[in-house]
Amino acid sequence: MDTHRVVVVGGGFAGLQLAKDLECPDTSITIVDRRNHHLFQPLLYQVATTVLATSEIAWPIRALFRGRKDVSTLLGEVVGVDTEARVVSLKDGNAIPYDTLVLATGARHAYFGRDEWEPFAPGLKALEDATTIRRRLLLAFEKAELEADPERRKAMLTFSIIGAGPTGVEMAGIIAQLAQRTLVEEFRSIDTRSARILLIEAGPRVLPVFPEALSRYAEQSLIKMGVEVRTGIPVTACNENGIAIGDEFVSSRTVIWAAGVQASNAAAWVGAEKDRAGRAVVQPDLTVGGKPEIFIIGDTASVKAADGTPVPGVAPAAKQQGKYVASVIEARRLGTPTPSAFRYRHLGNLATIGPNSAVIDFGKIRLKGGIAWWIWGLAHIYFLIGTRSRLAVGLSWLWIFVSGHHSARLITQKETLKDEV
Amino acid sequence: MDTHRVVVVGGGFAGLQLAKDLECPDTSITIVDRRNHHLFQPLLYQVATTVLATSEIAWPIRALFRGRKDVSTLLGEVVGVDTEARVVSLKDGNAIPYDTLVLATGARHAYFGRDEWEPFAPGLKALEDATTIRRRLLLAFEKAELEADPERRKAMLTFSIIGAGPTGVEMAGIIAQLAQRTLVEEFRSIDTRSARILLIEAGPRVLPVFPEALSRYAEQSLIKMGVEVRTGIPVTACNENGIAIGDEFVSSRTVIWAAGVQASNAAAWVGAEKDRAGRAVVQPDLTVGGKPEIFIIGDTASVKAADGTPVPGVAPAAKQQGKYVASVIEARRLGTPTPSAFRYRHLGNLATIGPNSAVIDFGKIRLKGGIAWWIWGLAHIYFLIGTRSRLAVGLSWLWIFVSGHHSARLITQKETLKDEV
Repeated sequence: MDTHRVVVVGGGFAGLQLAKDLECPDTSITIVDRRNHHLFQPLLYQVATTVLATSEIAWPIRALFRGRKDVSTLLGEVVGVDTEARVVSLKDGNAIPYDTLVLATGARHAYFGRDEWEPFAPGLKALEDATTIRRRLLLAFEKAELEADPERRKAMLTFSIIGAGPTGVEMAGIIAQLAQRTLVEEFRSIDTRSARILLIEAGPRVLPVFPEALSRYAEQSLIKMGVEVRTGIPVTACNENGIAIGDEFVSSRTVIWAAGVQASNAAAWVGAEKDRAGRAVVQPDLTVGGKPEIFIIGDTASVKAADGTPVPGVAPAAKQQGKYVASVIEARRLGTPTPSAFRYRHLGNLATIGPNSAVIDFGKIRLKGGIAWWIWGLAHIYFLIGTRSRLAVGLSWLWIFVSGHHSARLITQKETLKDEV
Repeated sequence: MDTHRVVVVGGGFAGLQLAKDLECPDTSITIVDRRNHHLFQPLLYQVATTVLATSEIAWPIRALFRGRKDVSTLLGEVVGVDTEARVVSLKDGNAIPYDTLVLATGARHAYFGRDEWEPFAPGLKALEDATTIRRRLLLAFEKAELEADPERRKAMLTFSIIGAGPTGVEMAGIIAQLAQRTLVEEFRSIDTRSARILLIEAGPRVLPVFPEALSRYAEQSLIKMGVEVRTGIPVTACNENGIAIGDEFVSSRTVIWAAGVQASNAAAWVGAEKDRAGRAVVQPDLTVGGKPEIFIIGDTASVKAADGTPVPGVAPAAKQQGKYVASVIEARRLGTPTPSAFRYRHLGNLATIGPNSAVIDFGKIRLKGGIAWWIWGLAHIYFLIGTRSRLAVGLSWLWIFVSGHHSARLITQKETLKDEV
C-alpha cells in the first residue's frame, strides 16, 4: 500500500488541529505555511499594546511536531493548486503532490474597498502587524513629548480604533490603561492622561455578538476607563492626519483598524464558489463540490451551523473543523464509515475590557466583571501551547497586575539605522 | 540659582550609569537616544541565536527614570553639536541647549574598509541586527530542507562566523547546539547535524584577550561541540555565495560578522581628536581638550588605564566612566574638589562557550568549565535591570537547560506579506 499524502496549507488553529488528530498508518502529512510559526491570534492585540512579547504567543510549527515522524513542515508560499495533476505550487518554484489537500489559509484584515486606508490604519493579523502598531503607539507619545504646537500635540495624543468587536474593545482598554496609568510618571512635557482614545463602531453597539446587556456593560466600563465610544456612525475617510467620523474630521495620528477581515485566496485556487467575504462555500463534509479529495476549513471556509447561521471565524470553530476533517480522512483511509456532516458546537463568547472587567456569554450563563476577567485569563493561558508559554504569559500578566508596568514596550525600526556611525 | 542643564546623548551603559548617579540640586538631566530602549548588549547574541526574546534584554529608557522628576528622556537622533552656542541639534530640527554635555554614543560593528561585505555578513549591535541574524539563521535550515541539489544544500548548511572574540565564540557555540541538538528531530529531509559551523579568526587564537591556556580550552570545547575553528588566517572576500578564507573559497549562505567595531561620530561633532578606531581622545578627566563642559565616555571614548593600556570597550568600563563623570559634575555643582583623573578598574573577562563550558579570567583567579559557566550565568542575571527581566531570562535559560528547546525561534519578515490574500 502506497503512502497517502495529505498536504495541509496553513498552520493556524484549523490546520494544526487536523495534523495533531490525524495519525494513521501509511499516511504522511505535509504542513505548508509561509511563516515558520503558529500564532495564537486571540492574544495578538496584546503584543500590539506592549503587554506580551512576540515569542510568547508564537511557536515554530515544526517544533510542535518534533515527535511525529509522519509530519513534515515546509516554509513556503502557496501560489496555486493544480487540481487535475493534484499538485500545490509554491512561489519558489517547488511543487508538492497530494492525494488529499486541506486548505486552511485563514483570513486577513480587509478594508471593504478602502484599501488606500491601510497605510494610515494598520490592521492586526500577523506578528509584524502587531509590532507595527506597537511602534506607532509608542512613537505617538514620544513625538508628542517633543512637540511644541498644542494642536499637533493633541493630534498625536488622539488614538482611534475603528471597529468595536472584541479586538477593538480590548485594544481601546489597554491603550487607555497605558495613558491613564503606566505612562503617567514617565513623561515630563505632556500629561499622558490627556490622551483621547476613540473607539468607533458603525453598528449600533460595541461587542455586537454579545447580548445587549453585556454590550452595555462593556461600553460603560470603557467610558469609565476614559475611552470615548462612538457607535452607530461610520468612518467615512482616513488619511495621514486623521479620520472622518460621519461628517466630523478628527485629527488623529494613530489609527488602528479592527473592523473586518477577508478570506484568503483559497477558493480561487481550487475553483470553489465564494461568499461575499471571499470565503469558499463548502459541502456539509467541508469538501469542495465535485472534489472530495479537497477540504477547506477555518476562517477561509464558509460553513453553516445546524440552525443555518454562519459559523463564526473564531479559534474553537477552526479547531472543531480540523478535528472533524481528521476523522473523515482517517475513516476513508481505514475504510470505516465516514462521519456525518460537520456540526459546529458553539462554546460561547469571551471578551476582556480592562483590569477586573470582562464579559462572558456561555448562552445560559452570562458573566461580567472580575469573575469573568479571571475566567477569561485562565482560559487563554489554558489554550496556549506548552508549559513554557503558559509560564511566560502568566508571568507577564502577573507582573502587570502587581506592578502596572508593561514589559514589551519596544520601538523597533523596520531597518537598521546605519547613517549615524 | 538657575537650573544647570546636563544633556546626555546615548542611553547605553555609560549614559545610564551617569544619569543614575547624578542627582544634584538645581540640576536637570536630559537623556537623548535615537532608540526608546536601553539594550543589554552582552546578551544580544542570544537574541540572534533564538535563546532570548527581544523584550527580555531591552527596557524603555524613560521607564527606568520613572521616579526621577529631574530626568527627562527624548527620542531623537543627534546630528551635530554647536559647541559655541552650546546646543545639540536633532535630525527632526529640534535643538536642545546644554550647560554640560555628555556624549556616550557608543560604537557599531565596522568592516575596516570592506563596507560592501555588510549585506552578506551582518553584524550585531542593535536589536534589529539580532532579529536579522535570527531570521537568516533559521531560514538557512528551512531552505536547506526544501533544496534538492546537494551542493546548494551544503552551502545553506554552512555557517561562518568571522571573528573569535567573546561574541563570535558564544554564537558559534549556540549555533552548534541548535544544529546538533535542538533542531535534530524537527527536519525530515536534512540531517541538521551535518551543518558545518566555521569560526574564523585572523589573529593567532580564539578569545585573544584571555590567557593562552583559557583560549586553548575554549578552542577545544568548540571543536568538541562540532565547530570548525580556523585561526591565523584572514577572510579575504565575502559575497552572497560565501567567503574566502585566505585563498580557499567556502560556499556559505549564512555569514555573521563579529570582528570589530567602530566608534560613533561623537568626536567629529565636538572637534575632538580621533584615534585609529574613530574614538575621541579625551583628557584624564574624560573631558574634551579645551572644552571642560563636554565629556565623552563609553565605547566612543579613547581612554587609557593607569598602566597606559587602552581601556576596553566593555560594559563595566562604560559604567565606571559614567559613575566618575557623575561625581565630577556633582563636585562642580556643589563647589567641592573634583575627583582626580578617571581610573579604570579591570574586573576581569568572562565568556561562555556552551552548556557547562565557560572561561573566566579575574587576573589571579582563572576558571574554566562548569563552575565558570554558572558564575557567568549568575553574573549576567545579576547585571540585568529589574526583577522582571531577571525572572524572564532565568526562565528562558532554565527551560533550555531542562528541555533543550529554545523559545524565541521566530522568523519575522521585514514587511508584512500582503500579496497572498
